[in-house]
Amino acid sequence: MEWTREMRYRPYQDYSAMDLLKLQRQAGSSPYQLHYHIHPASGLLNDPNGFNFFNHEWHVSYQNFPFGAVHGLKSWMHMSSTDLVHWQPRGMVLTPDTQYDSHGAYSGSALAKDGHLFLMYTGNHRDKDWTRTPYQLGAWMDKKGQVEKLKQPLFSKPTNISEHFRDPQLLEHNGHYYAILGAQTADDEAGHIDLWESDQLEDGWHEVGLVQISQYQMGYMVECPNLVFVDDHAVMIFCPQGLNKQVSDYQNIYPNMYLIGDNFDFDHAALINSSNTPVNLDYGFDVYASQAFNAPDGRAYVISWVGLPDTTYPTDDENWANCLSQVKELHIRDGQLYQQPVEAMRTLRIESKRYEFAGTLPMMPEPLSQQYELAMTIEKKQTGTLHLLGSQDGKHSLALHFDTKQGQLVIDRDQVGQPVATDHGTTRTIQLPEQQNLKLHIYIDHSLAEIFINDGAQVATLRYFADQNNNRIYFNQPTKVQGSLWPLSNM
Amino acid sequence: MEWTREMRYRPYQDYSAMDLLKLQRQAGSSPYQLHYHIHPASGLLNDPNGFNFFNHEWHVSYQNFPFGAVHGLKSWMHMSSTDLVHWQPRGMVLTPDTQYDSHGAYSGSALAKDGHLFLMYTGNHRDKDWTRTPYQLGAWMDKKGQVEKLKQPLFSKPTNISEHFRDPQLLEHNGHYYAILGAQTADDEAGHIDLWESDQLEDGWHEVGLVQISQYQMGYMVECPNLVFVDDHAVMIFCPQGLNKQVSDYQNIYPNMYLIGDNFDFDHAALINSSNTPVNLDYGFDVYASQAFNAPDGRAYVISWVGLPDTTYPTDDENWANCLSQVKELHIRDGQLYQQPVEAMRTLRIESKRYEFAGTLPMMPEPLSQQYELAMTIEKKQTGTLHLLGSQDGKHSLALHFDTKQGQLVIDRDQVGQPVATDHGTTRTIQLPEQQNLKLHIYIDHSLAEIFINDGAQVATLRYFADQNNNRIYFNQPTKVQGSLWPLSNM
Repeated sequence: MEWTREMRYRPYQDYSAMDLLKLQRQAGSSPYQLHYHIHPASGLLNDPNGFNFFNHEWHVSYQNFPFGAVHGLKSWMHMSSTDLVHWQPRGMVLTPDTQYDSHGAYSGSALAKDGHLFLMYTGNHRDKDWTRTPYQLGAWMDKKGQVEKLKQPLFSKPTNISEHFRDPQLLEHNGHYYAILGAQTADDEAGHIDLWESDQLEDGWHEVGLVQISQYQMGYMVECPNLVFVDDHAVMIFCPQGLNKQVSDYQNIYPNMYLIGDNFDFDHAALINSSNTPVNLDYGFDVYASQAFNAPDGRAYVISWVGLPDTTYPTDDENWANCLSQVKELHIRDGQLYQQPVEAMRTLRIESKRYEFAGTLPMMPEPLSQQYELAMTIEKKQTGTLHLLGSQDGKHSLALHFDTKQGQLVIDRDQVGQPVATDHGTTRTIQLPEQQNLKLHIYIDHSLAEIFINDGAQVATLRYFADQNNNRIYFNQPTKVQGSLWPLSNM
Repeated sequence: MEWTREMRYRPYQDYSAMDLLKLQRQAGSSPYQLHYHIHPASGLLNDPNGFNFFNHEWHVSYQNFPFGAVHGLKSWMHMSSTDLVHWQPRGMVLTPDTQYDSHGAYSGSALAKDGHLFLMYTGNHRDKDWTRTPYQLGAWMDKKGQVEKLKQPLFSKPTNISEHFRDPQLLEHNGHYYAILGAQTADDEAGHIDLWESDQLEDGWHEVGLVQISQYQMGYMVECPNLVFVDDHAVMIFCPQGLNKQVSDYQNIYPNMYLIGDNFDFDHAALINSSNTPVNLDYGFDVYASQAFNAPDGRAYVISWVGLPDTTYPTDDENWANCLSQVKELHIRDGQLYQQPVEAMRTLRIESKRYEFAGTLPMMPEPLSQQYELAMTIEKKQTGTLHLLGSQDGKHSLALHFDTKQGQLVIDRDQVGQPVATDHGTTRTIQLPEQQNLKLHIYIDHSLAEIFINDGAQVATLRYFADQNNNRIYFNQPTKVQGSLWPLSNM
């Protein structure tokens, strides 16, 4: 089916409830459906939004077009959790119903304030000629989840910024409110992060200026910037679209990267003593638009869209697409960002069915379903291939080629199942320390693999679309290894 | 709003998707919403249906009218789980779309067979004069969740049965298929259980006869009969509407009861050596239509509708109503049915926040939210009151008056919050063994309390509708007690 512009922007009330119930069934019963990750109730999911802690619960929303696997008229779909792992659907919390967000309640963030949660987001408006105007909007959500939008935009774009001005991250610092936005400068079409300030929140916003984050140019547009404080450093996580690969290499269609600074200068809009060269946040195939924030206790968490703009996925045929990653806790060690599963991920383990292995092994027991956690240490001075999601005939698998002598891991999804985004390659290569044991901590969820490497020094996240019966785990040759395997429960 | 017949039976396609999204939001964000129990995505939930194990997962559906808190046009909404605790929404699996189920895809059961799940259910049909005809229908669900309904009914009602003929439980026994149905005989309007048999499943059904379950008359209609085998006994769980209270007393508008036999005679339709006097399955205010089955390993599980026919609840104003109980494992000890939480309920515990208490105590620490598990032993030879869900001013609570001398527990929900079904009393009284310690194992989930008494010898389940800030736990006087308190995570 060809999705015309008219179809993508058809008002929600023009669809029937039966359409939606059928789409929800189709998504809910897909063999590729995620069982312990946030996935769309129907249609397309993209950026995580409004990730925060409020009223004793964690909250996150996702960008959603409920009526198909395309980028159409977007709303926020809300989830809440007590532990960052078990998420409960709360339904549509922001929907395009004003002149300012008529063509989409686009991405944004949230901040707990005075017993309410303040949502700041970009309203996408287009006029009759399809000319876009972005508005930065605000809304209050009370403890019952009821939302009241502010009548007027918080601010509009300044003249030096093009129509690409969105994804506000709202922060409170020293009694002031700050918003960090993705922006494209109008004259040179360059990607930037723009900093705004207000001391009233609902009013009084003014531009501080474009943020100095690196000596390099950040492509033609920056999306989804997030400033987060991690172990006494300031970390900027962002998506520099069109970044020159000579600045920092990446293989996905668009990168999601980070910079580390000693601190952040809110007065002068600068990442102090920036690491300058952005680093891939994820070394897999499918992470984009990650959203991070500091919890009330100071810990830094990040959650990612597992999906990419301008990319189709096999579930498009089932009228749904994409998911969010698990929540990852951030730390900095030796100047490097580490991402780790949150503590509560252990509660998914079915401990009674834990299997431990150690020795020079050709294979591990076959899990009952593609829903498990696999933690292993491969001893140094070995090369070989770990096959996951293997078919009985040996033809299909997700192949992890490791070399713990030279220090390299190559992830190959070419033979795992249906092809995805092959224009951008079927392998991803990760450099490892030489002559070191390799620790892999892998989560499999039916069509998603999250691979934490060496305690999260790198993470590789990827979608795959394999026969659900393909579940062999084996090495190409006997390999010195030890570890554990747990089936996991649904979230 | 008055729900006319026309509104209740309006086709789903005549509602807009926006209506449904708003209803889903309203249910999802209710302060009374359940966080670790199955609840409706929108509208009204009633009977559990199709509870079974298939394709490595547990399955259950619930009867649902998605568009309001009334009994309208019903569908099956499907959930699946890996552990009987964490349930994932799978969407609408059976909907009224044939001439045989035109006025509702009513209750039924499921049986795994040849790599498919066979769903057997009652189609509710009404003609122009609103005369009802019930059809017993079949459908195959494949591993992808796709459903194909049989073209013709499995069977219709025999002439000796009135229009009240429904809720088939499908069983396989010695290579034959049996269906156990709730039925009302036409001539005397008496409640019965009717047994049918086929050796082909899709065809060849014939009536074995009305089941001899008791020497007493079972009211004017039996709903939701379930035969389940527990520790070498046959147990019949059923809802004898209009049961004479002199046969067995009950306080709810309609009872949900059980009988125990030595075995079940499928050839002669008889519960062998029946206990004759039905016993309340639950001693609380709100359990009905429980569905039980034997898992592949022989264990017996039951899940209940927490809600009653002809009863309104405060969430009706939020356009949603009711929930399912947690799954309970069944055992028989000393001729009595015991119901216990399944093992995996422990995975909900936030162990890092476990609080243990022992001594002569006036109170326990106040949980952060109405989402916890409380296990305690109150020493024998004491009387007093345990208050749960207590307000700061002491005016509101759920009161459990215990007497471990004489052996009695009275549950009083009169002062906990908004009134519910007060025509049928605000207290429930449970007889306990005299001079014994009292073990209480209590689950609280925002508007639901499940109280397991003395290891499940009795269970008392109830809805309550209190201010979510009311969370004090205290005795009316210092009481010798020991136990543990855990906050629980979302399912």
